[in-house]
Amino acid sequence: MNSELNSKVVGRGKEFFSTISGEKPSLFNKGAWMGKVMDWSMKNETFKIQMFRFVDVFPSLTTGKLLTDHIREYFGEEKDMPPVLSTGAKVAGMLGSFGGAVLNKVLTTNIQEMARQFVVGENTKEAIKNMEKLRKDGFAFVVDVLGEATLSEHEADVYMNTYLELLDSLKSQYQDWKPLGNYGNANLDWGHAPKVNVAIKPTALFCLANPQDFEGSVEAILKRVRIIAKKVIELDGFLCIDMESYRHKDIILEVYKRLKLEYPDYDQLGIVLQAYLVDTDQDLPALLKWARDNKVKISIRLVKGAYWDYETVKAKQNDWKIPVWTIKAESDAAYERQARMILENADICHFACASHNIRTISAVMEMARELKVSDDRYEFQVLYGMAEPVRKGILKVAGRIRLYCPYGDMVPGMGYLVRRLLENTANESFLRQSFAEDAQIERLLEDPIVTVEREKAARAAKQKPEEKGPGGLKPFFNEAMVDFTRADHRAEFPKQIAAVRQQLGKNYPLFIGGKEVKSADTLPSVNPAKPSEVVGVICQAGTKEVGEAIAAAKSAFPAWRDTAPADRAQYLIKAAAIARRRVFELSAWQVLEIGKQWDQAYADVTEAIDFLEYYAREMIKLGKPKRVGNAPGELNHYFYEPKGVAAVIAPWNFPLAIGMGMASAAIVAGNCVVFKPSGITSVIGWHMVEIFREAGLPAGVFNYTPGRGSVMGDYLVDSPDVSLIAFTGSMEIGLRIIDRAAKVYPGQENVKKIVCEMGGKNAIIIDDDADLDEAVPHVLYSAFGFQGQKCSACSRVIVLDAVYDKFIERLVSMAKATLVGPSEDPANYMGAVADDKAMKTILEYAEIGKKEGHVLYESKVPSEGYFVPMTIIGGIKPEHRIAQEEIFGPVLAVMRAKDFDQAIEWANSTKFALTGGVFSRSPEHLAQARREFRVGNLYLNRNNTGALVGRQPFGGSRMSGVGTKAGGPDYLLHFMDPRVVTENTMRRGFAPVEEDDDWVA
Amino acid sequence: MNSELNSKVVGRGKEFFSTISGEKPSLFNKGAWMGKVMDWSMKNETFKIQMFRFVDVFPSLTTGKLLTDHIREYFGEEKDMPPVLSTGAKVAGMLGSFGGAVLNKVLTTNIQEMARQFVVGENTKEAIKNMEKLRKDGFAFVVDVLGEATLSEHEADVYMNTYLELLDSLKSQYQDWKPLGNYGNANLDWGHAPKVNVAIKPTALFCLANPQDFEGSVEAILKRVRIIAKKVIELDGFLCIDMESYRHKDIILEVYKRLKLEYPDYDQLGIVLQAYLVDTDQDLPALLKWARDNKVKISIRLVKGAYWDYETVKAKQNDWKIPVWTIKAESDAAYERQARMILENADICHFACASHNIRTISAVMEMARELKVSDDRYEFQVLYGMAEPVRKGILKVAGRIRLYCPYGDMVPGMGYLVRRLLENTANESFLRQSFAEDAQIERLLEDPIVTVEREKAARAAKQKPEEKGPGGLKPFFNEAMVDFTRADHRAEFPKQIAAVRQQLGKNYPLFIGGKEVKSADTLPSVNPAKPSEVVGVICQAGTKEVGEAIAAAKSAFPAWRDTAPADRAQYLIKAAAIARRRVFELSAWQVLEIGKQWDQAYADVTEAIDFLEYYAREMIKLGKPKRVGNAPGELNHYFYEPKGVAAVIAPWNFPLAIGMGMASAAIVAGNCVVFKPSGITSVIGWHMVEIFREAGLPAGVFNYTPGRGSVMGDYLVDSPDVSLIAFTGSMEIGLRIIDRAAKVYPGQENVKKIVCEMGGKNAIIIDDDADLDEAVPHVLYSAFGFQGQKCSACSRVIVLDAVYDKFIERLVSMAKATLVGPSEDPANYMGAVADDKAMKTILEYAEIGKKEGHVLYESKVPSEGYFVPMTIIGGIKPEHRIAQEEIFGPVLAVMRAKDFDQAIEWANSTKFALTGGVFSRSPEHLAQARREFRVGNLYLNRNNTGALVGRQPFGGSRMSGVGTKAGGPDYLLHFMDPRVVTENTMRRGFAPVEEDDDWVA
Repeated sequence: MNSELNSKVVGRGKEFFSTISGEKPSLFNKGAWMGKVMDWSMKNETFKIQMFRFVDVFPSLTTGKLLTDHIREYFGEEKDMPPVLSTGAKVAGMLGSFGGAVLNKVLTTNIQEMARQFVVGENTKEAIKNMEKLRKDGFAFVVDVLGEATLSEHEADVYMNTYLELLDSLKSQYQDWKPLGNYGNANLDWGHAPKVNVAIKPTALFCLANPQDFEGSVEAILKRVRIIAKKVIELDGFLCIDMESYRHKDIILEVYKRLKLEYPDYDQLGIVLQAYLVDTDQDLPALLKWARDNKVKISIRLVKGAYWDYETVKAKQNDWKIPVWTIKAESDAAYERQARMILENADICHFACASHNIRTISAVMEMARELKVSDDRYEFQVLYGMAEPVRKGILKVAGRIRLYCPYGDMVPGMGYLVRRLLENTANESFLRQSFAEDAQIERLLEDPIVTVEREKAARAAKQKPEEKGPGGLKPFFNEAMVDFTRADHRAEFPKQIAAVRQQLGKNYPLFIGGKEVKSADTLPSVNPAKPSEVVGVICQAGTKEVGEAIAAAKSAFPAWRDTAPADRAQYLIKAAAIARRRVFELSAWQVLEIGKQWDQAYADVTEAIDFLEYYAREMIKLGKPKRVGNAPGELNHYFYEPKGVAAVIAPWNFPLAIGMGMASAAIVAGNCVVFKPSGITSVIGWHMVEIFREAGLPAGVFNYTPGRGSVMGDYLVDSPDVSLIAFTGSMEIGLRIIDRAAKVYPGQENVKKIVCEMGGKNAIIIDDDADLDEAVPHVLYSAFGFQGQKCSACSRVIVLDAVYDKFIERLVSMAKATLVGPSEDPANYMGAVADDKAMKTILEYAEIGKKEGHVLYESKVPSEGYFVPMTIIGGIKPEHRIAQEEIFGPVLAVMRAKDFDQAIEWANSTKFALTGGVFSRSPEHLAQARREFRVGNLYLNRNNTGALVGRQPFGGSRMSGVGTKAGGPDYLLHFMDPRVVTENTMRRGFAPVEEDDDWVA
Repeated sequence: MNSELNSKVVGRGKEFFSTISGEKPSLFNKGAWMGKVMDWSMKNETFKIQMFRFVDVFPSLTTGKLLTDHIREYFGEEKDMPPVLSTGAKVAGMLGSFGGAVLNKVLTTNIQEMARQFVVGENTKEAIKNMEKLRKDGFAFVVDVLGEATLSEHEADVYMNTYLELLDSLKSQYQDWKPLGNYGNANLDWGHAPKVNVAIKPTALFCLANPQDFEGSVEAILKRVRIIAKKVIELDGFLCIDMESYRHKDIILEVYKRLKLEYPDYDQLGIVLQAYLVDTDQDLPALLKWARDNKVKISIRLVKGAYWDYETVKAKQNDWKIPVWTIKAESDAAYERQARMILENADICHFACASHNIRTISAVMEMARELKVSDDRYEFQVLYGMAEPVRKGILKVAGRIRLYCPYGDMVPGMGYLVRRLLENTANESFLRQSFAEDAQIERLLEDPIVTVEREKAARAAKQKPEEKGPGGLKPFFNEAMVDFTRADHRAEFPKQIAAVRQQLGKNYPLFIGGKEVKSADTLPSVNPAKPSEVVGVICQAGTKEVGEAIAAAKSAFPAWRDTAPADRAQYLIKAAAIARRRVFELSAWQVLEIGKQWDQAYADVTEAIDFLEYYAREMIKLGKPKRVGNAPGELNHYFYEPKGVAAVIAPWNFPLAIGMGMASAAIVAGNCVVFKPSGITSVIGWHMVEIFREAGLPAGVFNYTPGRGSVMGDYLVDSPDVSLIAFTGSMEIGLRIIDRAAKVYPGQENVKKIVCEMGGKNAIIIDDDADLDEAVPHVLYSAFGFQGQKCSACSRVIVLDAVYDKFIERLVSMAKATLVGPSEDPANYMGAVADDKAMKTILEYAEIGKKEGHVLYESKVPSEGYFVPMTIIGGIKPEHRIAQEEIFGPVLAVMRAKDFDQAIEWANSTKFALTGGVFSRSPEHLAQARREFRVGNLYLNRNNTGALVGRQPFGGSRMSGVGTKAGGPDYLLHFMDPRVVTENTMRRGFAPVEEDDDWVA
């Protein structure tokens, strides 16, 4: 900002501050309970976390006992509580046996009061009454309906209907309202603004909004937006489409544009842009250009953005570029930059400046003055219940201000409350700095560009040198998830699927000792959604070919074993680069050969890449002999050596990831591999040949021998030349391998090592305080993602009695919203199962389930292809077969437990111990689950599939596996034997002193 | 030292320095090759190590090729060599194809010349000639015969005979020598000193000198000392008994005292004391008192001591108190202190001051003057070939000096040479500081007490805070080895064996669920050296009792599993303390129940203690959940849980250590144990009950069920309630367990995990450049220690053709020196084998061996008890049964290999891969062995038994085991399953930031 203008901004800001001098927002008023809580939270991070989490769970604490328990779990015994919590009770003089009840009452009252601060009413009537009051005080409003997450068509309808009802109520009243300000037009506030102003959250209007199905999501949202819009227009009102998280940004922009083009001449349609998004510097000019191109007038509410933590965490978790500015002042600067651009386009774009930041507001005022923008082309907005001095100041200076007024139920209100609390306790909150910390006004009013530069310099000074991983590689990071917010990622799938389709039906040879080998026996692999479509015809290895492969592996072994670990690792790094280059194409093959959804297919390929990158680094680490003991005069080196020939037997459900994981672990550890893919994903198995061949892996190190298990399975397992078997698949076959492989045959070199991952019968527990907004979609995804064909999939959901009905109602409703059909169409939530055999088994289990319990939901399925319905069966008890046996398909058993202990007991009651999940907001129950829910991978408050290499090392015990953990720090140890070499370094009484000797001090 | 005296000492020292100003010992003369080597060695530690090691191996390089190869291996290609080595060859102008031969010649000539510097002659004749020359220059001598390590009675005789021959030669000549100095007596130097002065190394007179058999060692040495002494006395000569390493110090003192009492009136018998030994401050007054008590006159040569590195390293390796002063100046101070004490007792003690340190020499001179000690009561000695300016100075001032003159063969001469080179290149060497570094004279002459104080202060300043191990415990250290240099340790064994003998024959119950349980069936355990002696009568568990034990373990499991890992570890720490308290008693039981030698028995108990201490710490480390991945908003904790009921099946050969190791690992990991000891060491097995009971281990966590394998073995292994089997024993039983345990029975919770250590057929390779002084005793010990009944024992020795004859001759000679008999008598090298069955099997193998090869040695055995002869069989080829099958007894197969490659090939040619050894001084062969000698534990240049917990994690692969390593960092992982708990910590978009989050910078 040029210095002249900046001086004016600062001058105006100072004036602003002086007009409100001495005033405090109620938020920071330490005389009241909320102010105390805010004060304590800012001083004590742990309390803040507990307090805000407690506020979040509070609405679900529907009984006195639940409330009492949670208070204790979150804040400790009453005597240990921070005074801010216990004071109320103490003042009531009722400590002791009545303490709990009193505390409950005090907290309940206080939290409800706190929520009321920010929420204009709990229902339409109350909201309207309060908004009318606000108008009397000179404030305009924009009203917004709070809602739980929308998880079904029904819930979307409810949300929409609330708006319609609100609008109906307003219809009868708004014309009676006296317009604000004294401007001629009797029907418009300030002479130009509709009195009715409504904001809507688009994702609340469609429960499956997902950028993977971009077009479907836009249209589904638009369907309900249109109905609301029509009604708003009937009232000559203003409709603003709110922006939500980054994931849905482009969908929402598209919804807005389509809506706008349906009402090209109705100017009271607005959208929100978020200055904290890096994209907004592109999105804003693009939108303005679009408006000019289409000759329409638009309105933009510019906010800074309220999901900074969320967006940052999500991006970090998925290894995406962080979509938000990481320096707070960068958002402030972006805001000023973008506000100016909007003001410069005031002829076609109305501007709502939504900020509590006095610097920002002053800047907008001065820029508007400089650009001579007339008052009717811009306005100011602040949130209801916040920053009272600011709104007062604006009203005084600008003569117009609009309050953003949410209303609705307590439950979603608490989520809204937490966001507000967070916002105001953040270190960088303008309000906190201004009103709770009395920061220097000069600093508060500083040009944010200057602040950014200072902050950047400070960070650069603190910058640590780039961390190095093993062998000088960059540290391991999970490969980024597919990002369907990107148009290029969305476009790749149809393109690659079409390209792959051109290559279907080819013949695939075996690969032995570095050579392609044909066999007479072949088997086709087909598209399960369209069995007539042959994906490939694969040569089948018999015992002769398997014998040759073992011999090739055995003969390649000595040289491969003696290749330095770091050099072996380099082949994996190369293989990873190749798979990365081909990621979309490899994903497309999975969509067609095994029916994975786009994201599932992509995740399988990235997991394969992760295994390659992770094991490469692990091997470099383990490859260095480690000195053990440090007595002088002796050197003891502990190191690892490979076992020999490894048979790797892979499943079809993660056809690249699991096969690649087991094979690459074996290979990088120095073993040579005979790889048997599943018959129904042998083409994907062949991709491993392509990848390793391109990576230059020496001949014989990786041999590819698809084959009929009945013909060559035992032969491979029994071979005395095989030293290691890595298997992932069913319990039956796993146990058979374990049993057979334990026999030592004459001439056998090693006792066979078995790395074995088998089945699961995984349960998710829904506690009585669970956040159902989270639990329902996660359970649905865990149970039915990739048709439930994951060993990690949720196949039992154990719901506590208290929330059973509500949970099931929402779960079934959400299930109803989903579609079953070919996975190549991203509109389908669920696709075909693996093959006819799988289809038959699953349908049999569904029938068993129907007899043991009752059907809660059963979806429709297409007539062609190996489809089975999405099936939810209620009334299941632990003794039922579908509560005990692995189904490996989309059949979910629902069990009603009387309490958490029983839920844990049932969860543990099968012979498996693979994954499990718990949705709970009880600290004690979460701790109990950590201890007692004994599975290999337990997930708290999230889905229980999708373990990531390095982060969620995967595998279970009991009949689920032998305690190995793929993608974990101990995994490679199973593929090697440790050796120790001890050298006496003393000769003639003389021993060289080593740096780490325990020598005399 | 009082300051007046100190001033005089410093004054005299300065005068001393001034008289020799400008002179340099030939050692530091950079004009000559040796001076260059010394100079380069002082500047370059790596070169020094290589050079001194090369000098050590040099005499064994008997062919041009060996020499050329070693030069390259030690110093690199000629072009890369330091100039000091290659110059000679370069000067000869013969680089290129003749380079190697020239270099050989140059190095050979130079090294031989270097050795001649310190050695007065290679044979008696030459030595006498040179000593006569010295006398002409005014120097007296004390002559000493260099010798290889004495490994047999024959070698001891050879050594003794060399002295006798020397004395015979001197006899005919010494009387013709003109006495030194002009003092009346024609037959005595300086008027009082015998012209013939001889020093002997006592351990060269008996090959098995060992403080464990103190009395036997003293008498055996004395036998030959007497013969030499008699001859010396015939010549009116002086005999000095040299001191060697600390291990033999008390033996040598005792030898001296007994000899002295045999010649109470012959005053020319001396002994050496070493000022660097901390003990000398006690030993010296004790010896003086002894002399007074016995009214005899003695002579003491006081030296500083030449084995500082060796003593320190040995002590550190065995966790003994370091016997030497750790600050050089402390030795100097001790020297002055002790010299004064000797001088104060000059009436009964003649003093030989042996030092090159001008401060020390000056101090002795001034103290003698102060104490008015007459010249005939003390003299000065320096080493031949060293410190020429010093000896010249002394001669000038004192008028008398004696040179210590070693003579003999090149081979032992090289060892002597290395010691001298080391001594003079040490940073703290007085000569180095004085003549190679021109240190400040003031500093060189400083009172060592002052130096000590300064050094202590400097070390204190550098002192790091005490290192803490896991859980605040002190870091793991191996329990100290038994120290038979201590009289109390020696005395404990007979005492404890006698005490244990009082308790033999008792009945021992089972121990199930914390209760003693009797069974009708019992079996006796007997002393194998005296089978009529019943050690105990042990109840035998049948299937019923085993079933009860499994049930007890199963029911104790949940509570034990849920006990915090650190608390579980505390039980092991307590158990270790109990075993430590009982160490001698527990050892005594082993001597009687299984025939372990004292040291072997003690080592078994300390190994048990080590396992307890080590696994306790490992579990504390592993017990802490580890965060994996650091994406914000999610916490992934990786941790371990026990498997359940563990069957622990232990062998008899390490009856406490291995049983305790397996059981304690299982227990500390949280499993509950059903323990089956071997039938023949069940009383020792019962000690584990005693220890765990005293430690307070909860009932059912450790259950003791000795029993007949044929009755209850399969039942235990097959039990569906057993989740883990830890077994150490034979391959046959190991493989049977692996096979049976792989079957999963209905109701079985887990796939059984097998931790299994089986047999070995371990080879030691003797390379053509091996140091046989080391190789022979280490092979003998590795093969026959505890009768070869260790899975680690050497059962094949593969000797390279070039050294075969010499090695075998020395090995067999040494074997002949050993005795076979009950282990309770420390004179016996070998005891009885485990039982009659073992005896029979071993004897059968010995017979097979006799047919396959030829007997090189077969010892006598006592008639009573399960004794088999120590047997060495030559002419064995890889295809022979005794080259392939485990014998588990004292039968050693000897194989002659044509070269190192063949030796490695043969070593690897069995189905086992447990331990191995190599004696070689070829850097390339050692590196090759590291790579290619594929065994679990490979030992270079030392015995291949006695793996220590933490330092030599133990276990093999192939048919020796399943790749677990007891006492190693991965061992406990086999007793647990990893689990991961993943928590989504984000609620309402708010995730607490963890310290190690990968958060935005």
